[in-house]
Amino acid sequence: MKVMTEPSSGTSSAAPASRCLAPTYEGDFVLDEHLRLDCGCTLACPTLHYAVYGRLNAARDNAVLVCHALSGSALVGQWWPEVFAPGAVLSLEHDFVICINMLGSCYGSTGPGSVDPSTGQPYGPDFPLVSIRDNVRAQARLLDSLGIQRLRLVMGGSIGGMQALEWTVLHPNRVERALIVGVTPLSAMGLALNHLQRQAIRHDPEWAEGRYLPQRPPRRGLALARQIAMISYKSAPLFDERFGRNPNRGGEDPWSADGQGSGLIGDRFDIAGYLDLQGQRFIERFDANAYLAILRTMDTWDPLRGYASAAEAFRRIRARLTFVGISTDWLFPAAEVRRFAEIIRAAGAPVDYREMTSDHGHDAFLAEQAELVRLLQ
Amino acid sequence: MKVMTEPSSGTSSAAPASRCLAPTYEGDFVLDEHLRLDCGCTLACPTLHYAVYGRLNAARDNAVLVCHALSGSALVGQWWPEVFAPGAVLSLEHDFVICINMLGSCYGSTGPGSVDPSTGQPYGPDFPLVSIRDNVRAQARLLDSLGIQRLRLVMGGSIGGMQALEWTVLHPNRVERALIVGVTPLSAMGLALNHLQRQAIRHDPEWAEGRYLPQRPPRRGLALARQIAMISYKSAPLFDERFGRNPNRGGEDPWSADGQGSGLIGDRFDIAGYLDLQGQRFIERFDANAYLAILRTMDTWDPLRGYASAAEAFRRIRARLTFVGISTDWLFPAAEVRRFAEIIRAAGAPVDYREMTSDHGHDAFLAEQAELVRLLQ
Repeated sequence: MKVMTEPSSGTSSAAPASRCLAPTYEGDFVLDEHLRLDCGCTLACPTLHYAVYGRLNAARDNAVLVCHALSGSALVGQWWPEVFAPGAVLSLEHDFVICINMLGSCYGSTGPGSVDPSTGQPYGPDFPLVSIRDNVRAQARLLDSLGIQRLRLVMGGSIGGMQALEWTVLHPNRVERALIVGVTPLSAMGLALNHLQRQAIRHDPEWAEGRYLPQRPPRRGLALARQIAMISYKSAPLFDERFGRNPNRGGEDPWSADGQGSGLIGDRFDIAGYLDLQGQRFIERFDANAYLAILRTMDTWDPLRGYASAAEAFRRIRARLTFVGISTDWLFPAAEVRRFAEIIRAAGAPVDYREMTSDHGHDAFLAEQAELVRLLQ
Repeated sequence: MKVMTEPSSGTSSAAPASRCLAPTYEGDFVLDEHLRLDCGCTLACPTLHYAVYGRLNAARDNAVLVCHALSGSALVGQWWPEVFAPGAVLSLEHDFVICINMLGSCYGSTGPGSVDPSTGQPYGPDFPLVSIRDNVRAQARLLDSLGIQRLRLVMGGSIGGMQALEWTVLHPNRVERALIVGVTPLSAMGLALNHLQRQAIRHDPEWAEGRYLPQRPPRRGLALARQIAMISYKSAPLFDERFGRNPNRGGEDPWSADGQGSGLIGDRFDIAGYLDLQGQRFIERFDANAYLAILRTMDTWDPLRGYASAAEAFRRIRARLTFVGISTDWLFPAAEVRRFAEIIRAAGAPVDYREMTSDHGHDAFLAEQAELVRLLQ
């Protein structure tokens, strides 16, 4: 199994290394049976890679599950360190924090880079659709193995929040509280953005229908996909403030007379240089098939699927829920997060909604952790 | 010179064919000298393809210049017919309306598909950067040739609005009124979106550094570029209303178990099917090098370039200006259009700002023409 080494923030912002926390333990849990997936396929004894922080108390009632975002890893101490700051949301002294890498990822859990035991080859593009619920079911098995019956808290932002909410619906008696940041089921615009990213990867000459060579992955396509994602993670005001219409730092000339301009070398605006850099960084740490797998997990999340109505689904919830919307998030607009929270409240669940004011867009839950912590206090 | 035949709306919405107006005349004007470009290059005796509607009166004081949007053509009667409706903005009885295809386009004016007389080969990717001002200077020569000294009105949306405003600054004594819809200089987010589109084209295996064969253009790349543009032309509320999270019409299954899903065939959401269709339609009518050329014209527009300040640039204006912002436009947000209008007003120019309420986003000036007309009455 391929485990990429660079820590991942989930969407984009890496925390300062000095604040990073080392896990108490990091390892693999292998399911002792096949995982039946919502799509009808089976995943043979998948591995969940996970990290824990702090210690499980004797009563086993101090467990917190943190669910990571799209390109995140189990190492929550690296990408969400301020949530562990003294007096913040989590306490290394009192909590036992567990974070589990999503199925489909390239950070240790079974994904497209893993070997399919039925063929002896990596799954690659044949990795099946793993739903958010499938992930939650697998995570529950891991918690079972640790003797954790009930979570004090499950929390996550973006696709991590999808998992957190699904926990409260699927396992209502196992969750006391849930904290769900910047997420609803993907809107049509969100589905559109993922569709664009998928094509960017599949248009790469190295794509090879997903059977690309490990040494020749679809780098340019994955980099472009990341850039498309980045514009949805950040906000127009932030881009204007940081980059405006400046030429790329280092002295490029967007008004260069050379041909019609590549927009890639020598004639970029600053925002283009920034996006190129984000794309380059990303391809060093993430795999294209894994990216596609998790996009699909995200696309297909519908907490009402299989229920007759929102009321039927959400009245199952026993946990107290806190939703957080982000003022400049246009991937998951705050107004939509609020509306989603109200639908759940209308079904009888105890729901609290708060709004984070930030210029950072969707990424604020990672880029402005202190602000998030303040909002939650 | 390659002239694509399908009429173009500018951004995306085609008008019902029944309302389309035929031009009084459609033809070419060839500059009798080289055009010195802002970038320092020279364009050898370029051709401007143009269309006129109505008749020039004896006093030659009833001329209106309409400037088209990114992928538009000179045939304004096809893409903006409701602006000609009785009692609307333009009158075929009283006005002499002229629309000139932009340099760099593939609808008749000199562009990358034209032959460079210095090489005997098409310009292709070597087509030079033509600024908005270069276009306005060339357009002025064409008006000179028709004996038109003064325009009753110059109008346009999007990049057409960039040209309209530039007319009022560059030729202050030649414009009586200007109508500028849904535009400001591109924000960092706008520059980002164009950077993504540029890469989509250049990643296509058929791109060949811009020297692609006419029968093998970078279709997939241009289609993806168009799709990226489409999400910025429309709005999230419109997408939600039209497509929501529905499977693609025709019965595809986004939850299909097959592999991780192509997102292209058989497992698309409705929004993905819509975007794919938009991409396919676009590659039938537009050329990739032309698209890149005009993106760059758009990127580099800075009405202050060469002036010491906004005051110095805009106090040149003698025309009365009307700006229109569109409530759901996120490519050129209404608040930014208003702010831009206020900067110009602060320089002493007579400026009026109006706001169009529409779910259609940037595209509203084409998609909801009747609403635009109503706003202007």
